[in-house]
Amino acid sequence: MPPAPLPQQLVELSDLLGQMCVTAAGALRHATTALLEGRERLAQQVVAGDAKVDALRARVEELATDALLFHAPVAGDLRVVVAAIRAAGDIERMGDLALHVAQAAERGRPLPVEVRGEFAEMGRVAVELALKAAEVVRTRNVVLAMQLDADDDEMDVLHRHFFAVLMEQDWPHGVASAVDITLLARYYERYADHAVVVAHRTVYAVTGQQPDTITI
Amino acid sequence: MPPAPLPQQLVELSDLLGQMCVTAAGALRHATTALLEGRERLAQQVVAGDAKVDALRARVEELATDALLFHAPVAGDLRVVVAAIRAAGDIERMGDLALHVAQAAERGRPLPVEVRGEFAEMGRVAVELALKAAEVVRTRNVVLAMQLDADDDEMDVLHRHFFAVLMEQDWPHGVASAVDITLLARYYERYADHAVVVAHRTVYAVTGQQPDTITI
Repeated sequence: MPPAPLPQQLVELSDLLGQMCVTAAGALRHATTALLEGRERLAQQVVAGDAKVDALRARVEELATDALLFHAPVAGDLRVVVAAIRAAGDIERMGDLALHVAQAAERGRPLPVEVRGEFAEMGRVAVELALKAAEVVRTRNVVLAMQLDADDDEMDVLHRHFFAVLMEQDWPHGVASAVDITLLARYYERYADHAVVVAHRTVYAVTGQQPDTITI
Repeated sequence: MPPAPLPQQLVELSDLLGQMCVTAAGALRHATTALLEGRERLAQQVVAGDAKVDALRARVEELATDALLFHAPVAGDLRVVVAAIRAAGDIERMGDLALHVAQAAERGRPLPVEVRGEFAEMGRVAVELALKAAEVVRTRNVVLAMQLDADDDEMDVLHRHFFAVLMEQDWPHGVASAVDITLLARYYERYADHAVVVAHRTVYAVTGQQPDTITI
């Protein structure tokens, strides 16, 4: 079968990246619910579901390589293909981070009450970022892409507040729980960073210009 | 000026990736020394030096894009170019993680004595992994690439031991220090993971096969 024409391949690439983002968003939403509500079976489903993001990533790479091989795209089209390969790596990592949250939920230690609110909020903001990233990669909406920076600022505020709670109060839950939730909070922060980078890569693909913060 | 022939561009790509790895190795070596010996000025140099890795990354992307544009490489050559773009992203991240260690050293809180040995060892293993990754990208030595997995296992053992020290002893240094060093240990572990991924990407470029653990 001859390869599809390049414009069709590029649309398919955007669709796949959008699917990846939506899948990674669903994974983190469920992982956060599992964490907050101690739902082990839900956590297991997230762990099992990570293979879907990985499979989509493999498909992006295959399709991008086909596009390079059969169409030797130039200029903006080349940027779109290269950006897709890199964005797929970021979204795969988002899936991995959701998986880490789910694995923490599987271990079944309940979250200390002082930080439950922060985690619920970090989860909400991170999932929203992933869904906006999905829209950005599908629509190539550069204005929306730049809005993700503001949401990520919100995540940074939550993250800093979380550390303030952990460090300034007389933390009564012991070192083990402090270590656990420090890593958990880091997973949410990195997830959000990757969602922003996915949006930035789209800006680069569309405009040829790197937003300043692309190296987050 | 006409673009260089493809074989020359591919060699230049490997050289740049090797330079990136060596630079990231130096950054983490210095950051670790700064951390262990409380050398603030050395930490500042690492922070300032991160721009070098970023600049090399930009050069890899530019050169890889040129190679795609002017030579439309196929088969193994195409894999080498795509793998270079992705590996550069990993090595840039290694630089960022060395920067995070240096920033922790700049804050000047001394490492608790119980974990100094672990951090010295994690630093040593991580730097060694980066230097081996440099050799792998330069020589495309697939056998050496697979050896990095064993070194990374060593890092995992150190990392687990570190958490055992932190969790099982009656940790006398408070929650703030536990949180600090949890994140620090995470930086070393992620740095090592990325070095392994760089080696795996080379295996893929050379053989067309993904090592099982490429999605670390």
